[in-house]
Amino acid sequence: MNKAEASLRARSATTVPGGMYGHKNVAHLPAGFPQFFEKGLGASIWDADGHEYIDMMCSWGPIILGHQNPLVDEAVRQQLAQGECFNGPSSRMVELAELLTDTVAHADWALFCKNGTDATTLAVAVARTETSKRKVIMANGSYHGIAAWSSSPTAAGIPADERAHTIRIEYNDVASLRAAVSEADDDLAALVLTPLRHDISRDLEPVSPEFARAARELCNRHNAVLILDEVRTGFRIDPVGSWTSLGVQPDLSAWSKALGNGHAIAALLGTRTLEAAATRITATGSFWFGSVPMAAALATVREIRRPESQAILTASGTKLQNCLRTQAASYGLDVNVSGPPALPFMTFANDPGFELSAVWARAALDEGAYFHPTHNWFLGTAHTDAVIDRVLNATDLAFARVARVTAEPGADRLLRAG
Amino acid sequence: MNKAEASLRARSATTVPGGMYGHKNVAHLPAGFPQFFEKGLGASIWDADGHEYIDMMCSWGPIILGHQNPLVDEAVRQQLAQGECFNGPSSRMVELAELLTDTVAHADWALFCKNGTDATTLAVAVARTETSKRKVIMANGSYHGIAAWSSSPTAAGIPADERAHTIRIEYNDVASLRAAVSEADDDLAALVLTPLRHDISRDLEPVSPEFARAARELCNRHNAVLILDEVRTGFRIDPVGSWTSLGVQPDLSAWSKALGNGHAIAALLGTRTLEAAATRITATGSFWFGSVPMAAALATVREIRRPESQAILTASGTKLQNCLRTQAASYGLDVNVSGPPALPFMTFANDPGFELSAVWARAALDEGAYFHPTHNWFLGTAHTDAVIDRVLNATDLAFARVARVTAEPGADRLLRAG
Repeated sequence: MNKAEASLRARSATTVPGGMYGHKNVAHLPAGFPQFFEKGLGASIWDADGHEYIDMMCSWGPIILGHQNPLVDEAVRQQLAQGECFNGPSSRMVELAELLTDTVAHADWALFCKNGTDATTLAVAVARTETSKRKVIMANGSYHGIAAWSSSPTAAGIPADERAHTIRIEYNDVASLRAAVSEADDDLAALVLTPLRHDISRDLEPVSPEFARAARELCNRHNAVLILDEVRTGFRIDPVGSWTSLGVQPDLSAWSKALGNGHAIAALLGTRTLEAAATRITATGSFWFGSVPMAAALATVREIRRPESQAILTASGTKLQNCLRTQAASYGLDVNVSGPPALPFMTFANDPGFELSAVWARAALDEGAYFHPTHNWFLGTAHTDAVIDRVLNATDLAFARVARVTAEPGADRLLRAG
Repeated sequence: MNKAEASLRARSATTVPGGMYGHKNVAHLPAGFPQFFEKGLGASIWDADGHEYIDMMCSWGPIILGHQNPLVDEAVRQQLAQGECFNGPSSRMVELAELLTDTVAHADWALFCKNGTDATTLAVAVARTETSKRKVIMANGSYHGIAAWSSSPTAAGIPADERAHTIRIEYNDVASLRAAVSEADDDLAALVLTPLRHDISRDLEPVSPEFARAARELCNRHNAVLILDEVRTGFRIDPVGSWTSLGVQPDLSAWSKALGNGHAIAALLGTRTLEAAATRITATGSFWFGSVPMAAALATVREIRRPESQAILTASGTKLQNCLRTQAASYGLDVNVSGPPALPFMTFANDPGFELSAVWARAALDEGAYFHPTHNWFLGTAHTDAVIDRVLNATDLAFARVARVTAEPGADRLLRAG
């Protein structure tokens, strides 16, 4: 381990629980991944010891226009010269609400908050308020934040009562959805779904049009609210809404991550019908009306909804996915590349413990490309064709390492031990 | 209403639920208060039409070193030139954890998040994890955020089950605390308290030392966790912790608001004993490791913990409180000025509907000082002696207006109608 990283780890071990917590905890990664980063610029990030990596995680989604995007940072600096946080919102809030309702097809209004968890949880409260019902249906394996209602039965510190009204289904399984709706009986408030299946440690799976349409139709029939959780997908599939091309519109949608290109902001978007309910819930936070992240979001959304921006995501993501398949095949490796172009992921066949993925991601890291072995990746507009070429150099060498490792005698056993 | 304000209100009415939501909704204020602000500098804020006010709310707490504080903003700009959000924290996180554990007496570790709600809710999860118990005791009227566990029984969209394990007591009432502990029986996980009683629409009330000590003692005896919610009080009573001078230390404390001088950050601080439990809860968010608010917090905490900074808060707050009493008496008005120097509040006698407070706050606004009529105020280091003098000019004229209104025939009836 390099010196600055080792020093920071030693210090954080005494002042931060476990040294680190949450989804960015390096304990979830193969040995050798850096815990700390000091700089980001465009598609690159630098760890504490000054090593540069091409960033294929985009900070787990927030960075969609590249680190230190000039348009976003100029908007941020201009807003800082006015101030960040006042006794009310600034006109940035109105401009952003107008921009988002103009961008996202189903949205008539916007309510701003800070975290994806805020947005999904407010959505559930609006649905329950509107319907005067309680049950919420969500899919097994889906992540909608850390609030109690969506927590796992094994989550520490959350009593079962606090998720008593959550019913789990299998994503893309219409029969399980119908069964859950029956189970909810006359108490169904909402159906909360991600636009595609993007559970951790799993190939990404597009929504089946039948499933999306059944969700909409069942909500209509049972006077329930359809909530689309766009926190991870937002602006990376379709800026107008990820299910718009399927002809399915949600009643509410939750957005965060890419919304402010790294600045902390989230939004709940809704249809006019639900506006009255949205005025009745308790929805507030000390920093929810902060102008700097709103200025960042204005710049980000204006830029990312441009067809030219979307074209970069599609072209670079498609090239990456195709070339990963070709490279793997050239080494005789069997991989499954999944996900939309800007949310790619890859698994190896016969690798349930992700040992090959770990070897591959670790090798790519050594060659200067930061991929996560078990969570989908994120692309942004800084991933130009030239950047993807650099990434592909790294992945080629990473496949070569996997091929060498799998060819070694006893590889099976070694990989399992690792 | 002025032109820019009217235009923004008309626009937000069509794109934001109810035109505005949350604690900064101007609907909670007398007519004439501006909804929108465009600038803050030092102790002043400017509304959308360019009117300047001395800010006696400090954005409801976050601004403790004045708007656009040069030290904070320089730290922010330097961090922006490195980047905001990466695949892991930057060394800012370690520095901030070290600074906070060095500053706050009971704290051995720090865990960062975004909202006060995040910090209090994570505290409850840590307590439940540590104790393997469920019940949480909190005071009637206390505000600990918008999560389900602390929600009011009348909160829209939150089923009763989601607060089933919350027991309410009366603040400062040891008997009600003992009764609640008995009710929790062998299932008491935590006692969550604010350092003083600072409920909305109520005179502020210091904690009684007996109550604070009883809270500590009962937690010790029943293997429960004492959580101090410093979100509103943090750095404005005592940077080492608001109950330190009483000799009572919490096990966990929740901080936000003033922590980053307006930038979105919150922290859960805890003792070593609870570190293991803190590693077991699910605690994460897309922006929780953002470096810019951490850089802002580093600059803010370094500055606010200086004795010179605390001296300004104490001197200015004390002067304000004393002079408000003197001014009111000079007009024959009966007021109760309450709260610590940096968290002052004032009510009029025989004014249960806050009609006189509304007249007073509205008049002060006309004279260039922004006070809230029903919620405690916040001071910062930008409230120098000269600024307080300007504020006192405004409050003197405001008391004069209240005196005139109350002297008018039929004032009682008129005030009630307003």
